[in-house]
Amino acid sequence: MTDLDAATSERATLETAPTRYIEGDGIRFAYRQLGPSTGTPLVLLQHFSGNIDAWDPAVVNALASDRSVIAFDNAGVGRSTGKTPDNVVAMARDAVTFLDLLGFSKVDLLGYSLGGCVAQQIAPEHSSLVRKLILVGTAPQGGEEHLLAVLEEAFSHTEAPDPRLPLFFTQSAASQAAGKAFLDRVYTRKEDRDIDNGSAVTDPQAKALITWCATPDPEHALLRAIEQPSLVVSGSHDTMLPAGNAYAMFKAMSNAQLILYPDSGHGALFQHHSLFVSQARAFLDA
Amino acid sequence: MTDLDAATSERATLETAPTRYIEGDGIRFAYRQLGPSTGTPLVLLQHFSGNIDAWDPAVVNALASDRSVIAFDNAGVGRSTGKTPDNVVAMARDAVTFLDLLGFSKVDLLGYSLGGCVAQQIAPEHSSLVRKLILVGTAPQGGEEHLLAVLEEAFSHTEAPDPRLPLFFTQSAASQAAGKAFLDRVYTRKEDRDIDNGSAVTDPQAKALITWCATPDPEHALLRAIEQPSLVVSGSHDTMLPAGNAYAMFKAMSNAQLILYPDSGHGALFQHHSLFVSQARAFLDA
Repeated sequence: MTDLDAATSERATLETAPTRYIEGDGIRFAYRQLGPSTGTPLVLLQHFSGNIDAWDPAVVNALASDRSVIAFDNAGVGRSTGKTPDNVVAMARDAVTFLDLLGFSKVDLLGYSLGGCVAQQIAPEHSSLVRKLILVGTAPQGGEEHLLAVLEEAFSHTEAPDPRLPLFFTQSAASQAAGKAFLDRVYTRKEDRDIDNGSAVTDPQAKALITWCATPDPEHALLRAIEQPSLVVSGSHDTMLPAGNAYAMFKAMSNAQLILYPDSGHGALFQHHSLFVSQARAFLDA
Repeated sequence: MTDLDAATSERATLETAPTRYIEGDGIRFAYRQLGPSTGTPLVLLQHFSGNIDAWDPAVVNALASDRSVIAFDNAGVGRSTGKTPDNVVAMARDAVTFLDLLGFSKVDLLGYSLGGCVAQQIAPEHSSLVRKLILVGTAPQGGEEHLLAVLEEAFSHTEAPDPRLPLFFTQSAASQAAGKAFLDRVYTRKEDRDIDNGSAVTDPQAKALITWCATPDPEHALLRAIEQPSLVVSGSHDTMLPAGNAYAMFKAMSNAQLILYPDSGHGALFQHHSLFVSQARAFLDA
């Protein structure tokens, strides 16, 4: 970035930042960079089917108040070119390509759902690149997932204005209200929104997530190879990737803190956004 | 308290505060009160065998920076008179007597280990008295405990300067160093220290804790009756009351947040004292 670009990033929010592009290895990656360019950048790895505008501005902007935060579309997703792979290993390879293109030699990763699987894949292989890990609403290799059943159920709620209301939030009044507030925040940006993903993205992503969970790793070899300080977060009633995954990950990892939130689903970090941001910042700054 | 007493409490620390006494129902309770008398007082319920000076000044003083914090000896313990009961129900009754004597109509409770059992007993029966609960290193009724085995093991470490080093901390260098720092803090106070407990306290307390865990509550009826917002905290490698208790409690409770710390034992809140205090304050202030 130029100095002018840097100054623009520092003032920008997820809703106002321009989408930038960087190209390499045949992929043009779309991304937005927010916050001051001090300290270790925090790179966000997005969930199944999500694009840059599926992140919660309340989470991203607050995290970017005192660090550089980068949201991006991995290969094939949203406005990035290339083909969406059908496996986590290739997604991790593409994400590392993106980090290399931005010239980062040290990053923190926040991996959410499928992005959390990608983060688990990157961390042990790139131990000098990754400083700390935040793993939210995700599963270990060989973990428990109910993706297809939950998607089917969510899309049967034809009265819901957005499948994320039944998918990411519990049925309690408090959680549904938090879900509606989340959607309001997500749709604040009107101009230059990211492109919604179709089946060319979601089909291989679903295969990648299902295969990840169907691949046995009874000794949690991958998790045990993660030496970076990690924060594992889940909602109490995540129907897609149940909280038992987070507890199993915590037990297998050598340096993890576990935080589980009450009355919350897959979108626990958006429902409890203030609490999550304060805990994530404390973890990253420790 | 008089105004002068209140001003003294506000400036005092656990190491410097005078021990005060209040009497009722035939028991003279010893206690120390710290911090400004604003907001909801936080009352600490101590672990098996512990007295007022077994609390970590780093935890208590930091919590008392912006609220009233009360450490006390329940009936029979330390400098309090009366008989130590051999069951949690009677301990809860005595603790409520103490709260009534201080004239509190609303409190937050931090129950640690056996004190966490007492807090679980008090909360549902006194729903208007208790605002929020912090349950650390504890077990649900019917939970898993290894008290006697762990005590035997700890006291076999004749080279350890204090049984709390093997009991409360893991064998890692980092945890043992945190344990030594904890003991240094605990022994800072030289004058007017609380009285160490003998078997007249520890025998009935051990019976109470073992009975609590041996009493089946497969449906977690007691936990399900707790409606107060709760924060459940445990160390990853608590050998006395394993972290699985905390996870089971979180799952059974309707409004609990769970936080588990890495590489830590029964004394996780003392090892990770800065993190614990910041998270406890955020929980109490939310």
